[in-house]
Amino acid sequence: MEHGTVGDAYGATLARSYRTGARPGENFELIERDDGFISVTDAAGYFVPPAKWPRIDRWAYQRVSGRVLDIGCGAGRHADPLTKAEFDLVGIDISPLAVEVARQRGVAAHVADIIEPPAGLGTFDTLLLLGNNVGLLGGEQQTQIVLKQLGGLVRPGGQIIGVGMDPFLGAGPEHLAYHERNRQLGRPAGLARIRYRDRNLVTPWIDQIFLPLHELAEAIDATPWSVEETYTEGADYAVRLRFIGR
Amino acid sequence: MEHGTVGDAYGATLARSYRTGARPGENFELIERDDGFISVTDAAGYFVPPAKWPRIDRWAYQRVSGRVLDIGCGAGRHADPLTKAEFDLVGIDISPLAVEVARQRGVAAHVADIIEPPAGLGTFDTLLLLGNNVGLLGGEQQTQIVLKQLGGLVRPGGQIIGVGMDPFLGAGPEHLAYHERNRQLGRPAGLARIRYRDRNLVTPWIDQIFLPLHELAEAIDATPWSVEETYTEGADYAVRLRFIGR
Repeated sequence: MEHGTVGDAYGATLARSYRTGARPGENFELIERDDGFISVTDAAGYFVPPAKWPRIDRWAYQRVSGRVLDIGCGAGRHADPLTKAEFDLVGIDISPLAVEVARQRGVAAHVADIIEPPAGLGTFDTLLLLGNNVGLLGGEQQTQIVLKQLGGLVRPGGQIIGVGMDPFLGAGPEHLAYHERNRQLGRPAGLARIRYRDRNLVTPWIDQIFLPLHELAEAIDATPWSVEETYTEGADYAVRLRFIGR
Repeated sequence: MEHGTVGDAYGATLARSYRTGARPGENFELIERDDGFISVTDAAGYFVPPAKWPRIDRWAYQRVSGRVLDIGCGAGRHADPLTKAEFDLVGIDISPLAVEVARQRGVAAHVADIIEPPAGLGTFDTLLLLGNNVGLLGGEQQTQIVLKQLGGLVRPGGQIIGVGMDPFLGAGPEHLAYHERNRQLGRPAGLARIRYRDRNLVTPWIDQIFLPLHELAEAIDATPWSVEETYTEGADYAVRLRFIGR
């Protein structure tokens, strides 16, 4: 048997939802984990205004200031309302179809990876890692490397506002089994190897590593960033880091 | 990589939806085809009253009479309203979890396969194959075998009311490619080899064969059934067959 066509399934879902009016109940984000666990999220949630955002995103929004880089901006869930609110914002995402939607909505978006942000974007006061994009930083070691790199993108006093998730807090049996499977495979327990699916499309596998807040804070200790503020809601957390490197 | 745990994913979705109030936007039926194409349907649709059924199901409902066998009854989408409307109805389905839900709703449901209906259920005036369950009959040859068997379950003058789908009418590019793939694999073009997925569960592969209405009618010609009425709506069709075998 086969597994569809490798392509931008993530962006395809968002693009179809946007094209058809982003109505609930019509298009769904499908995330398949490498143990076969599959989750479904209504894509319409990616197009709701700030008034309908989860509290943790509104906590983040409240703290945005200056020139903004939205890392993993997707179809502009946060970047579009921020741009409309006249923040000077640039978005990057690895999904070409999502970036296309973000551009259609008026966001200055570019196809790029957090690991290698493109040159020429200038410097920023606020770097955003919303929507669990703290998981894109990787494990403890990679988080430290990436945070040091991100230091090169910020102006003096610049900040990172990120949203992440404690993978262990309140985890159900299928998730506990997955952590155990990770340990047996010699992988970080909080790793999630996932791919997006949409109709006949499937993305390559993507590794996300979720750290509990205290482990993230420990990793940050060895970087030119300091934790200024945190906010938690169940397993979800938001952090605000300030650049102290120079 | 693995593909979850083999189990009753179909019934698990329905059971969770029923248990949590069958609200839209919460539980989704995931059907994965063996070319990797995946489709999403809100499970809440399986619990709506006849007033909200698709027109084709209401066409079928209008024609139900006497003692009823609902073949592939699932969680009782049709069987529960019919039972509440005081039809003398028995349901069968291969999904233990779906049958459990149907029973909780008050349906006389049993775990059984269309190919080998259990003994001791008695005889019926109406056999139902709703919700595309005509696809369970199989290809032309198997359809003929199964229809002959079903003749043994009906009383004189008994009927089958079935809903099916023309796989070729208005099929989009991914579906046309699948038909072509079927032909190359020496399979019937209208075959759909599918499995259900739910969180960490996945069913075994299930073969459904969809015949255009004229091919179904041809297959019926060589059986002790006659086509009495048809109804079409786009690619969907309903048929009413009468037993003429004795």
